Amino acid sequence: MEHTVKAFEEDITRLRGLIAEMGGLAELSVQEALEAIVNGDEELGQRVITRDKEIDALEMEIDRLAVRTIALRAPMADDLREVIAALKIAGVVERIGDYAKNIAKRVNRIEGRRRFEPLAMIPEMGEVAVEMVHDVLTAYAARDPLLAKEVIARDARVDAFYDSIFRNVVTHMVENPATIGSAAQLLFIARNIERVGDHATNVAEMVHFAATGVYPPDRDASGN
Amino acid sequence: MEHTVKAFEEDITRLRGLIAEMGGLAELSVQEALEAIVNGDEELGQRVITRDKEIDALEMEIDRLAVRTIALRAPMADDLREVIAALKIAGVVERIGDYAKNIAKRVNRIEGRRRFEPLAMIPEMGEVAVEMVHDVLTAYAARDPLLAKEVIARDARVDAFYDSIFRNVVTHMVENPATIGSAAQLLFIARNIERVGDHATNVAEMVHFAATGVYPPDRDASGN
Repeated sequence: MEHTVKAFEEDITRLRGLIAEMGGLAELSVQEALEAIVNGDEELGQRVITRDKEIDALEMEIDRLAVRTIALRAPMADDLREVIAALKIAGVVERIGDYAKNIAKRVNRIEGRRRFEPLAMIPEMGEVAVEMVHDVLTAYAARDPLLAKEVIARDARVDAFYDSIFRNVVTHMVENPATIGSAAQLLFIARNIERVGDHATNVAEMVHFAATGVYPPDRDASGN
Repeated sequence: MEHTVKAFEEDITRLRGLIAEMGGLAELSVQEALEAIVNGDEELGQRVITRDKEIDALEMEIDRLAVRTIALRAPMADDLREVIAALKIAGVVERIGDYAKNIAKRVNRIEGRRRFEPLAMIPEMGEVAVEMVHDVLTAYAARDPLLAKEVIARDARVDAFYDSIFRNVVTHMVENPATIGSAAQLLFIARNIERVGDHATNVAEMVHFAATGVYPPDRDASGN
């Protein structure tokens, strides 16, 4: 029995390590995708696109290990909840990687970069979303439900940024019809950042659940 | 061995039944939440809020059964992929239920309903999102990767609706400053519908994966 407990601890440590690695790559990808957009750096954008395969492979590795852990160690209660959370979190982090890739693909679709003011709003919005991803991974590593709740609360800021960018870009479109194509790209990018924030919130709920056995009481506040 | 195969088939049939039940409730909740908003029906809104607990309970039941199936039947390859997909899909459907609840909570925050034109845009957008949820559940039940891909493609329509509603509501705000509070509620509702579409897309990817072993090639198109 003690052998099984030790084996389970090893599995769960490895699972947590893989989630940290996967999450770290997703966070880096969101950050670099936005850098690539702001600087028109196609090479960096390409790196983000390539990295998505690594993220997908990590999800599969996490799935495999989680299944093996359930099958061989037969964890109960809290331990089982932790393995299930790892499976679900990996699914959501994979999606955050998708949004980064989607942003990166738009690098060469923005023209006249230097005179395109709405672009200036993206980094600050992106920073909040990237921080959410970063902090939710910290909350996961530290099993910290309070930090998880704090991440959930921050989603409203990303939403407010999105609304503000949307209004600004639409105004810019009206005043500069020639740049409508590039401006539309910016709306897609802002929407992808918003979704990163939404999915970080989703992970935060799972972290809270894994740490406490209950979902945060203000769970649906994230839709605000 | 044949006994195990039969037991696995029974488990997976039950898992699929639970997902169908959970998904059906989530679909109904989104639909009724929008009805409640449009008609100012607080009682119906309350029913949606109450139903969310049922949806959450179903997720836990699916988690438990999936874990039991992995532990007792030790499924391999395609079978295992199917159980993992059930776990992940349940996590996403639970979130769709959250968005419905979040919409339902806003029923009594919209004033002057009869003279509030932007409200008229919500049902059509909602219909597309509800249909996406409905069809992705059909695709899951029928293991139909083509229908899953079709659902993914439809997310762009929900996004276009959101953009259009956003622009209209902002214009309405400028012209009718007295109704800004109610108009803001509408933006939150439209955003929640958009997220329902995004999460239906997420489920569609998992359905495609469960049915074929690969994610749809245009996976990231959903972020468009």
